Amino acid sequence: MTIPKNDTFLRALLKQPVEYTPVWLMRQAGRYLAEYNQTRARAGDFLTLCKTPALATEVTLQPLERFPLDAAILFSDILTIPDAMGLGLYFAQGEGPMFEKPLRNAVDIHALRVPDPYNDLRYVMDAVSEIRKALENRVPLIGFSGSPFTLACYMVEGRGGTDFREIKTMLYKQPELLHQILNKNAQAVTAYLNAQIESGAQAVMIFDTWGGALSHAAYREFSLHYMQQIVDGLKQEQDGVRIPSIVFTKGGGLWLEAIADIGCNAVGLDWTIDIGDARRRVGDKVALQGNLDPSVLFSSPEVIAQEVEKILTSFGSGSGHVFNLGHGISQFTPPENAAVLVEAVHSLSRKFH
Amino acid sequence: MTIPKNDTFLRALLKQPVEYTPVWLMRQAGRYLAEYNQTRARAGDFLTLCKTPALATEVTLQPLERFPLDAAILFSDILTIPDAMGLGLYFAQGEGPMFEKPLRNAVDIHALRVPDPYNDLRYVMDAVSEIRKALENRVPLIGFSGSPFTLACYMVEGRGGTDFREIKTMLYKQPELLHQILNKNAQAVTAYLNAQIESGAQAVMIFDTWGGALSHAAYREFSLHYMQQIVDGLKQEQDGVRIPSIVFTKGGGLWLEAIADIGCNAVGLDWTIDIGDARRRVGDKVALQGNLDPSVLFSSPEVIAQEVEKILTSFGSGSGHVFNLGHGISQFTPPENAAVLVEAVHSLSRKFH
Repeated sequence: MTIPKNDTFLRALLKQPVEYTPVWLMRQAGRYLAEYNQTRARAGDFLTLCKTPALATEVTLQPLERFPLDAAILFSDILTIPDAMGLGLYFAQGEGPMFEKPLRNAVDIHALRVPDPYNDLRYVMDAVSEIRKALENRVPLIGFSGSPFTLACYMVEGRGGTDFREIKTMLYKQPELLHQILNKNAQAVTAYLNAQIESGAQAVMIFDTWGGALSHAAYREFSLHYMQQIVDGLKQEQDGVRIPSIVFTKGGGLWLEAIADIGCNAVGLDWTIDIGDARRRVGDKVALQGNLDPSVLFSSPEVIAQEVEKILTSFGSGSGHVFNLGHGISQFTPPENAAVLVEAVHSLSRKFH
Repeated sequence: MTIPKNDTFLRALLKQPVEYTPVWLMRQAGRYLAEYNQTRARAGDFLTLCKTPALATEVTLQPLERFPLDAAILFSDILTIPDAMGLGLYFAQGEGPMFEKPLRNAVDIHALRVPDPYNDLRYVMDAVSEIRKALENRVPLIGFSGSPFTLACYMVEGRGGTDFREIKTMLYKQPELLHQILNKNAQAVTAYLNAQIESGAQAVMIFDTWGGALSHAAYREFSLHYMQQIVDGLKQEQDGVRIPSIVFTKGGGLWLEAIADIGCNAVGLDWTIDIGDARRRVGDKVALQGNLDPSVLFSSPEVIAQEVEKILTSFGSGSGHVFNLGHGISQFTPPENAAVLVEAVHSLSRKFH
């Protein structure tokens, strides 16, 4: 049983007392850091960076060298699972991730195979172990996966950032086909996150980036239901230590009570909701993670501190808050503004604990 | 004083008794209709279509020839105001609307001129009058404008569909500059909508397409505040007839109470909110317009009818509901499915009235 020297993040997720509000940044190892771009250039391409544990370890630790962040997050791609399913992930120049073989028909969907994380995604488990070693127990390591629905969006559309026409046509016209995909994705994500936990991840997060595009009813049936299935199947502890889980649906503020009900320890919030209102709505059920608009980091140190103070004040006293952005940090963020943010959260939050 | 032969839509907006739930479709005159594409081809380009009253009239009436819709909506572009302000609107192939001179500095913002709708936007007023004549009082005509914030997004970014980096940088770094733009936009929209009312529009709608990208606090300060200013300045009646107003913020479900408070007659809903919950939250304050996911129209007649029934049932008995999609109809919609939708709303809603 190994507790990190700084376990503030884990305690906040479990709503145990903390001395200050912990903070990490979604996509904290990313293109806004020159050293990340150097490692990525050295790797040659993004997929090689993800699939080479030594390089994934290097970039995972880079933001921790710059900023006193309270957690590290596995550097990996959200699409490792469909890639391992054989859909042919590739990155077209300036286009983001794409799949050579989008899933559109019953035959291909029937043939879809749930990957074995220890074989088909060995490189991820190796990265988790190597990052844990390199972290030397300074802060906890977060493992993660895309949600079944978010993975399905990429799998059916063949790419991200679409109008969801293909997947929503399937959803309304052949819902049983989409349920087959989602069932397999949920099995795959459960096994994948449990393998990450066994390999050393000390908390896990499910990113439901596209669930917010669904109607209130479709969200429950096609996204939340499968995240619940995953949370039900997650290892609760490893080597005697609790492994907290975080569920984040971007644009899911209207559905907060339902999300808080699926058994996760924490719910991620984007910036459209007042975190104080969110806290009143979920009560004692879950911790909350968020919820600064990443665009605030384009402003000045003074404005960043003001906006941090507003969120801390709105959340109020007591544990159960992990500070974060409401979405990944922009590649155009000046790194010195990320430093200002982390420092502001640490210093301004002490009076609330 | 002229009441349309079918004034169901106007009565529903004012929460007066109706025999069935009225329905129209955002972007009902659009690319999913072959006859629209023919007229557009004849016009040569989109801007000529908007700026030629006879052609705008032709396409406005096309969907009414096909479907027994309960309202017509002025065919025009959302960006007529910034175009009239001299920002140089153009449409790049496959790119949507763009501005030659995006607004980025104080000098350009100071120089921004509020257009006179009767001079600078004469073609819109001419279209409104001509459409009213052509409608022969069958159904009411809706006038519309983009919201001050949504217009500002295009004006500052120079185009739509961005990550809002430019406008949010301005919002957090130089909020006073953005407020100057928004003030001028609010004045311009108020004058523009009032001129549409004087020219014959029988209801008006403000489209706040991008307000949902803001934080809960920024939404109130940079979008809702200016829509309130417009609603306060709108003509309440014309020739002795009430002119109802509709405000629609896509992604604004969390802020419903605040939107319902600005004095508009109806609030538009996208598909992420249950309309029954929305009704409970706004009480008797406003009517509601929405809220079918446009993707449902990619499915079958049976599914369309089921989804219509769910929304009608969730809203429940009584007036105060205008059926619509939660966003513009997709260009890929089979027109026969739009017919199924209109018929389903009309027939299935009678039992609730």
